[in-house]
Amino acid sequence: MKNIKLVIVGSIGIDSIETPYAKEKNILGGSASYACVAASFFSNIGMIGVIGSDFPNSFKKLWKDMDINLDGLQIQEGKTFRWSGKYEKNMDNRKTILTELNVFENFQPSIPNSYKNVPYLFLGNIHPKLQLDVLNKMNSPKFVLIDTMDLWINTAKKELEEVISKSNMLTLNESEARLYTNKNDLICAAKELLKIGPDYILIKKGVNGAILYSKDSIFLLHAYPVETCCDPTGAGDSFAGGLMGFLSKYDTINEKTIREAMTYGTITASFGIEEFSLNKFQKINKKDIDNRFSKFLKMFAL
Amino acid sequence: MKNIKLVIVGSIGIDSIETPYAKEKNILGGSASYACVAASFFSNIGMIGVIGSDFPNSFKKLWKDMDINLDGLQIQEGKTFRWSGKYEKNMDNRKTILTELNVFENFQPSIPNSYKNVPYLFLGNIHPKLQLDVLNKMNSPKFVLIDTMDLWINTAKKELEEVISKSNMLTLNESEARLYTNKNDLICAAKELLKIGPDYILIKKGVNGAILYSKDSIFLLHAYPVETCCDPTGAGDSFAGGLMGFLSKYDTINEKTIREAMTYGTITASFGIEEFSLNKFQKINKKDIDNRFSKFLKMFAL
Repeated sequence: MKNIKLVIVGSIGIDSIETPYAKEKNILGGSASYACVAASFFSNIGMIGVIGSDFPNSFKKLWKDMDINLDGLQIQEGKTFRWSGKYEKNMDNRKTILTELNVFENFQPSIPNSYKNVPYLFLGNIHPKLQLDVLNKMNSPKFVLIDTMDLWINTAKKELEEVISKSNMLTLNESEARLYTNKNDLICAAKELLKIGPDYILIKKGVNGAILYSKDSIFLLHAYPVETCCDPTGAGDSFAGGLMGFLSKYDTINEKTIREAMTYGTITASFGIEEFSLNKFQKINKKDIDNRFSKFLKMFAL
Repeated sequence: MKNIKLVIVGSIGIDSIETPYAKEKNILGGSASYACVAASFFSNIGMIGVIGSDFPNSFKKLWKDMDINLDGLQIQEGKTFRWSGKYEKNMDNRKTILTELNVFENFQPSIPNSYKNVPYLFLGNIHPKLQLDVLNKMNSPKFVLIDTMDLWINTAKKELEEVISKSNMLTLNESEARLYTNKNDLICAAKELLKIGPDYILIKKGVNGAILYSKDSIFLLHAYPVETCCDPTGAGDSFAGGLMGFLSKYDTINEKTIREAMTYGTITASFGIEEFSLNKFQKINKKDIDNRFSKFLKMFAL
């Protein structure tokens, strides 16, 4: 068994997605699913999550084919978490049509012994009390990234603040950063968020890239410009997954490695959105990511 | 008299601007005004435009202090062009409250002899028939940048297309590129626009930077992150002005010089938005621009 370098907890869902150009029903989704697959191009990953008894074997096979360790995956009687959404013409705004928590409702993460000393942890977007539970059950990981969303900012801010204070990096999108801090300017919002405790605030801007704020520096990252965006679902999770996969592989935390990790993250995510679900990831390898990475560097070189 | 390197035509206006944080009445504005002042940090500029008999001397003095040649400036009996607008909370969307063409309505650009052989020309955002008139009166400039807006795309597309076909670079913002081409994806929109004739399509994305498309390459540029955006009016004009000022100074056109010119353009524009009107430009010099340029490079270096 390979030595696991990165543990990822998050949602695992069966999605139905409609864009202005196409729609797909009952496809594999969820933050843990996207993040683990993206991270698996770089490192050895352990997944924590829950699925129902209706979960298709083909979806599990996809993870196994990517060499993702599933010891932390629980299978419970009942239906898997379901989400369906519809994208507007710009492919940036989306409406949630349906959310069914199902087995996710009473999810109690259990951490296999083989995960407990893993140095890198990505707390994907789930309820902060679950994130906190996982974090507390691990033996002080070296680097923790936490993702969140508007729902938890609005309904569970106290618990969220506690997890953030114990993490090294917080990622959230522009509007969530504004919502959390009540500051319109992103630099001001990031300064507020740094006060909670993490060393890094990573603000995602979708097609407009991402910005990393630390106490002393700002890093501006473009998104790789993809001609055909088929389905942006999971792009933020793939971005974070690629980032953490890269970091856990190189196992050195400094401004330089984090910048490189973010860049690999955006490249990984750029493949994901070219097809529905995780389909594109099944067709590419690390070499494709490296090639696009090199092409990308030339796009912003002076 | 200094050798003029760049001629700029555009609007000259007296603006009234309201943001969520402040408002200012009767301040200097207009595309030519912003672009000339921004360009003047790099090169010798000649301005073409029209003002009314009500135009304050202090505004003219500002241009003279920046060494801008005003031989192409007409003074006509009547009121100067007026514009007033109001910004929403995000400082990106704005509503036009009032537009009074005044002396601008019957503006007939006349080109001083000293301008006719100038190699660089920026056709700022005015009616395409005026842009075409200026272009035709010049002796085949080496490099022409044309800016435009949704109004001309909707009302004067045929004339606009003619000017674009005779220009080397077209600049417009995201929504205008989509409106012009009816393509949602920017890469597809840029490909359509390249077919009209220019070598470069420069799509402005406000706070999210800009993208340059040519037949063989894409260049992604961030906007310099400013903590306090006081007034974004004229940012696109300052960006284009800085870009053309730099290009006309170095007088070499290739991918490398254009990328550097764009970067200097965004840095110049980033100062402009820190105060109302052209106020900030009166307080900085080329060294301030160079310092911020160096700081900026570190913000996206890997």
